[in-house]
Amino acid sequence: MSLDLESRLAARAVDYLLDPPTGDDKVIDFSAPEELLSLFDGVLPIGLDDRTDTASDQRLVDAVDLVLRHSVHTSHPRFLNQNFAGPDPIAVVGDWLGAALNTTAATFEAAPVFTLMENAVLHKLARLAGYPVDPSEPVPALPPGLFCPGGSTGTLYALQLARHRHQPDVITAGAGPDRLRVFVSAAGHYAATKSAALLGLGTDAVVEVAADHDGAMIPDDLATAVRSSIDRGATPLAVIGTAGTTVTSAFDDLNALADICAEHGIWLHVDGCYGGSALFSERHRHRLAGVERSDSFVWNLHKMMGVTQQCTALLIQDPARLGACFAANADYLFQSDKLNAEYDNGDRTFQCARRVDSLKLWLTWRARGDAGFAERIDRAVAMADHTRAAIDASDGRFAPVVAGDFTNVVFAWIPPDLRPLTLAGGGVDALPADDRDRLHRLPPAIKARMQAEGTAMVGYQPVHGLNTFRMLFMNPRVTTDDVEAILAGIDEYGSDVAQVSIRD
Amino acid sequence: MSLDLESRLAARAVDYLLDPPTGDDKVIDFSAPEELLSLFDGVLPIGLDDRTDTASDQRLVDAVDLVLRHSVHTSHPRFLNQNFAGPDPIAVVGDWLGAALNTTAATFEAAPVFTLMENAVLHKLARLAGYPVDPSEPVPALPPGLFCPGGSTGTLYALQLARHRHQPDVITAGAGPDRLRVFVSAAGHYAATKSAALLGLGTDAVVEVAADHDGAMIPDDLATAVRSSIDRGATPLAVIGTAGTTVTSAFDDLNALADICAEHGIWLHVDGCYGGSALFSERHRHRLAGVERSDSFVWNLHKMMGVTQQCTALLIQDPARLGACFAANADYLFQSDKLNAEYDNGDRTFQCARRVDSLKLWLTWRARGDAGFAERIDRAVAMADHTRAAIDASDGRFAPVVAGDFTNVVFAWIPPDLRPLTLAGGGVDALPADDRDRLHRLPPAIKARMQAEGTAMVGYQPVHGLNTFRMLFMNPRVTTDDVEAILAGIDEYGSDVAQVSIRD
Repeated sequence: MSLDLESRLAARAVDYLLDPPTGDDKVIDFSAPEELLSLFDGVLPIGLDDRTDTASDQRLVDAVDLVLRHSVHTSHPRFLNQNFAGPDPIAVVGDWLGAALNTTAATFEAAPVFTLMENAVLHKLARLAGYPVDPSEPVPALPPGLFCPGGSTGTLYALQLARHRHQPDVITAGAGPDRLRVFVSAAGHYAATKSAALLGLGTDAVVEVAADHDGAMIPDDLATAVRSSIDRGATPLAVIGTAGTTVTSAFDDLNALADICAEHGIWLHVDGCYGGSALFSERHRHRLAGVERSDSFVWNLHKMMGVTQQCTALLIQDPARLGACFAANADYLFQSDKLNAEYDNGDRTFQCARRVDSLKLWLTWRARGDAGFAERIDRAVAMADHTRAAIDASDGRFAPVVAGDFTNVVFAWIPPDLRPLTLAGGGVDALPADDRDRLHRLPPAIKARMQAEGTAMVGYQPVHGLNTFRMLFMNPRVTTDDVEAILAGIDEYGSDVAQVSIRD
Repeated sequence: MSLDLESRLAARAVDYLLDPPTGDDKVIDFSAPEELLSLFDGVLPIGLDDRTDTASDQRLVDAVDLVLRHSVHTSHPRFLNQNFAGPDPIAVVGDWLGAALNTTAATFEAAPVFTLMENAVLHKLARLAGYPVDPSEPVPALPPGLFCPGGSTGTLYALQLARHRHQPDVITAGAGPDRLRVFVSAAGHYAATKSAALLGLGTDAVVEVAADHDGAMIPDDLATAVRSSIDRGATPLAVIGTAGTTVTSAFDDLNALADICAEHGIWLHVDGCYGGSALFSERHRHRLAGVERSDSFVWNLHKMMGVTQQCTALLIQDPARLGACFAANADYLFQSDKLNAEYDNGDRTFQCARRVDSLKLWLTWRARGDAGFAERIDRAVAMADHTRAAIDASDGRFAPVVAGDFTNVVFAWIPPDLRPLTLAGGGVDALPADDRDRLHRLPPAIKARMQAEGTAMVGYQPVHGLNTFRMLFMNPRVTTDDVEAILAGIDEYGSDVAQVSIRD
């Protein structure tokens, strides 16, 4: 095994970073599983034989080229498929440095610089959220939160913190007899039900509160649901407010939720995995008004900010709760007699060894500055506004399905004979069954064409029961030309597909 | 922001990868928190100001140089501090490629190549474990396990799978009235208690079974503990067998544990986070005999194999359980009407967006081959054997604290006036209190010197209540010269420290 191989492979990674596919390059050179397997068979099979031999350097390099060619290019301006896009190249290199240094963020001893950076970025994030941190101590020994491996895990930890506040002996004695309830909007993330299942609360403990047409929780319905739970002898444990729903990027009214939580002593957890980054922008931070009153707040920097998978901060109003809830006091790792043990973040979370997620955020923040972070958000919303305007001006080719005013544009392509069609504000519910069925089947067919040709990646999902497209903006590389090209593509594929179904 | 900055930073990462500190270079250029903060203040403060401005390219590059200079060099052959060391450079580049492509492993659509690679490596790992996989289908659509963000999380998931088998409605209804019990050896990992707390079982539900002097669970004690739990009306849910304990790298007798589990219908989970990799070696795989009878098996490739943090496989005897236990069926992500949905691994685990952990393992395996993987293990144990022999031949300067025959060497430095001293096999318990107290205080003092000078990093922790050194071998860069240098260093620091305490 020569050093030469490592250099050659590293050069591939650097080339890709500095010059990724863009513009009219394909977003994905799509192949079905069998085709991919067959492509690799010609170079280096994906399946590992009973006996896996050492491959030649050339085959390894060729295999990496195949990986690069047939993976999804999430930095491509026409990748608008899901809640992450456009990795910041500085963040990627920060990630690389962390990988090359390959340590764990659990102890100061193993991660001296990264521990301080972690505490520094958590401090600044908490400050943006209006949590009570001391501005004169920007690198506290006890940070106001922790990094965790994704947003769902953040919500899991938050609910355990809530349960621990409600029942301090839950850690040792296990869950008590109280029938606990967790409230989340119908448009909220499935992290609520998944967490409830894992915690042993059960998904039945999750009360789904109605959301309005655009996806924001209806506070009056929350108040009613909470009272109704109490009347039935259950105990409201936590309310999960959503700041930026997955599908429509709607924001719950956090102050209204906080009022209800305050009245009943309920833990308020804010799922800002997607929309938390609005706090970076003076123009958009109002959407999270009230987040400073929450008990916990999870925020994925790997979504809107492009700080590579994963970079998830769970902020805690009262960080002293972390140690009480999660400490294991393992004496082989968190020796109290070693140097700087008070900086060991590992004994304040569930995970033991933990990848370094702080450097990439710190470096990106230092490189872009507050202004650069704000601009990423402002630009994204501006591009979404442009798209909404283009849809409005499309002579009925497209119709918005929700109004929306943040980064997500949710819309349908309308076959010519159904134009114009109003779908937002309850229009979907008023559709005749045949039309609805026809509209429902279009996005998968259009998407399959788009994916096969690799011209763009745009997600679809049911909204009010109807499959609809969702374009999400966060990648600063996206231009108005990209928007026009994507819409034109959907229109073209839609016309083709509609043609075929008429002929059938 | 120029492309030039990205190139310059990437070049730093590549240079570090190809030419990391080694030999007499420092393992760590150690600074206390205040010193680190002050060093960065001269370049780019770690603390982020109220207003964080964009830094100049030069300051960013200088900051990265400081990061590299003051981080722990875990690839250095004198880093023997914990259960990971010696990242494989091929794995690092695999990690880099994954970061640059920055997608999620949750869906085939977003990760076509990586999904297939994930399924392929899980298949091969399961095959090594003797789990029932079909050799004629090396890339199954339903893989025999999943990747998760660390070993503790793997154990958490495994215990939830066990609970789900015991009580199928736990997902919806929540934990039932049964008083469940989880059995793990006293030398097992704290993932057991942490998981029990998070699942709502409570740490009281974890029954600690005695381990022998070397750290392996005593099967008779397990049998007794299980019967005693049943007699008291509790329900044995799971036994966690440990394959490679954290401190002494001891292996539980998995067949003996499996017999007990079979008798009582208990879920057997094997924590092979550390020692699972012994399966790669014909010479050492016998240590895991019986693992094929377990229900689940968690294995960290980022420990012994150097496949960068994190690379954790949780293998499942009956993978159909994964979907039943973890599916959320979120219709915006796992659309059943989209292409290749049966390959979506995301709906078989707790996490939603998930970093790609498969490519780095696949690439490393292809580059090293089965033979290279075996050699990494064999070489590590051989180096540990060499160290044990050196300790035995040290004229009493060092004394083994446990016998040990795998990668971990657990020993004490003995002050001249106490030589020779027998500590293994119960010797620690027989120590006079004064001697014990003196020996207990030496390792932290020696380690502080070692850390300050940066000559090596070797962990210490209490074993049988006595602070003792632990050298762990897994980094193929370690030579016998490194071993001699480290032992000579400990002897020198020990003599200095003992001198000082005598003078005091």
